[in-house]
Amino acid sequence: MYVFDYDIRVRYAETDKMGYLFYGHYANYYEIGRVEAFRALGLRYKTMEDDHNIMMPVVNMDVRYIAPAYYDETIKVRSTLKELPTKMITFDHELFNSEDKLINKARVKLFFVDMLSGERISAPEYLVQALLKYFDD
Amino acid sequence: MYVFDYDIRVRYAETDKMGYLFYGHYANYYEIGRVEAFRALGLRYKTMEDDHNIMMPVVNMDVRYIAPAYYDETIKVRSTLKELPTKMITFDHELFNSEDKLINKARVKLFFVDMLSGERISAPEYLVQALLKYFDD
Amino acid sequence: MYVFDYDIRVRYAETDKMGYLFYGHYANYYEIGRVEAFRALGLRYKTMEDDHNIMMPVVNMDVRYIAPAYYDETIKVRSTLKELPTKMITFDHELFNSEDKLINKARVKLFFVDMLSGERISAPEYLVQALLKYFDD
Amino acid sequence: MYVFDYDIRVRYAETDKMGYLFYGHYANYYEIGRVEAFRALGLRYKTMEDDHNIMMPVVNMDVRYIAPAYYDETIKVRSTLKELPTKMITFDHELFNSEDKLINKARVKLFFVDMLSGERISAPEYLVQALLKYFDD
Repeated sequence: MYVFDYDIRVRYAETDKMGYLFYGHYANYYEIGRVEAFRALGLRYKTMEDDHNIMMPVVNMDVRYIAPAYYDETIKVRSTLKELPTKMITFDHELFNSEDKLINKARVKLFFVDMLSGERISAPEYLVQALLKYFDD
Repeated sequence: MYVFDYDIRVRYAETDKMGYLFYGHYANYYEIGRVEAFRALGLRYKTMEDDHNIMMPVVNMDVRYIAPAYYDETIKVRSTLKELPTKMITFDHELFNSEDKLINKARVKLFFVDMLSGERISAPEYLVQALLKYFDD
Repeated sequence: MYVFDYDIRVRYAETDKMGYLFYGHYANYYEIGRVEAFRALGLRYKTMEDDHNIMMPVVNMDVRYIAPAYYDETIKVRSTLKELPTKMITFDHELFNSEDKLINKARVKLFFVDMLSGERISAPEYLVQALLKYFDD
Repeated sequence: MYVFDYDIRVRYAETDKMGYLFYGHYANYYEIGRVEAFRALGLRYKTMEDDHNIMMPVVNMDVRYIAPAYYDETIKVRSTLKELPTKMITFDHELFNSEDKLINKARVKLFFVDMLSGERISAPEYLVQALLKYFDD
């Protein structure tokens, strides 16, 4: 299992007239969580796209909104991989507010696409290699 | 069953570097679909919030991304209520691109909150009344 | 002079915790105003980018915020070209709220870039031609 | 003179189909720059709004776009106050990319509003006090 935490502060632009983090912006937080989870592994998503021509479109996202997030709060985005990626990669995200209360949960499934052929491919080997030590049980 | 279609054109600001409508912005399209579905019933969501002090936070959103949407495309957002709202209201959204291909599906569940007490309440009677004729079978 | 009006309804996602259209989203409204002003001339900005490889980056934007815009209001975006484009094109945008009060003004200057060479170019001839009749005085 | 630097990484959601940071999102970066410049002074903008009922709407923004910002780049937002705030506060923002090249400049003028009366007021005394030492010449 690979778990990575990353803090994001709620921006003014992300609030809505309820005073909450707008429900659509959570997807953005998951995306940042994923990218930073990769960076912590020594992988840069930008490099995957720009140099390796691999992109990772989201195919499914299931979100549960438990409690609101407020302006200027620091939200901890926990991103968990429970399984090694194969044709698909599944992230479980949990968001905690500044009182460490769980306020949001999401499962996001992505696949890998070769940008040159437009075809779906398996997880690149360097990604699997970088993750192996977290799954050797 | 109540079904309402509303067209939204993909904005430049909503595209990402893949050239697609960014996956986080779909939530925004659903929100517009819901508000316009209400407006077509003679109900204005702004009035619900500002005059009736009822807000409708999203509690669950389950999205399936089937194909990308592109800049300047007109996307048809179909919003369907399969059941009358009670303590909860469930919208099924289907998005069709300019070739009428289904590109995205989502189920969004919201509840009703009295903004003065902060308590969950049942669907307001005028909303149920406005919907009744679509469900008299 | 070429003047074009286009209505945009303020989205929930665009409001902030003040309950106003967030000040950063006005740039988005200008962009839509420009694109629709082009469309009314028979020109599609998407075609310029995708088929003619011309893009129009903004080089300067000067905005005056006069009064707020609110959720669900319909804002009229007036886009005016006071001069024919040459190396540069200058749009004057005026935004009016639902009571026809001027709430925002902006001057936005853009130039034309050949996406293949990365070089600045003059306004494409078909754009100048489409505008000529509005300037024959 | 008070100068504060704050780093912001360009998010995927903020890119557009040109692959650039969308021109409308710069306003968001300035806003974050201002809020963090205040925080470094020991002031929290959220507290100003929520506890002191003072909000700071933007009245003017003049932006010059010099070069694009790209996905995943870290942008340094330099926020400068050249004068003590009175009825107005003026921020000069300069954005530098990861090669320390100046890519964007903006002057943003805001005023202070008492949220209870809706009236314009002068800069709150604690803000002026916090800034004084940077202007004692």
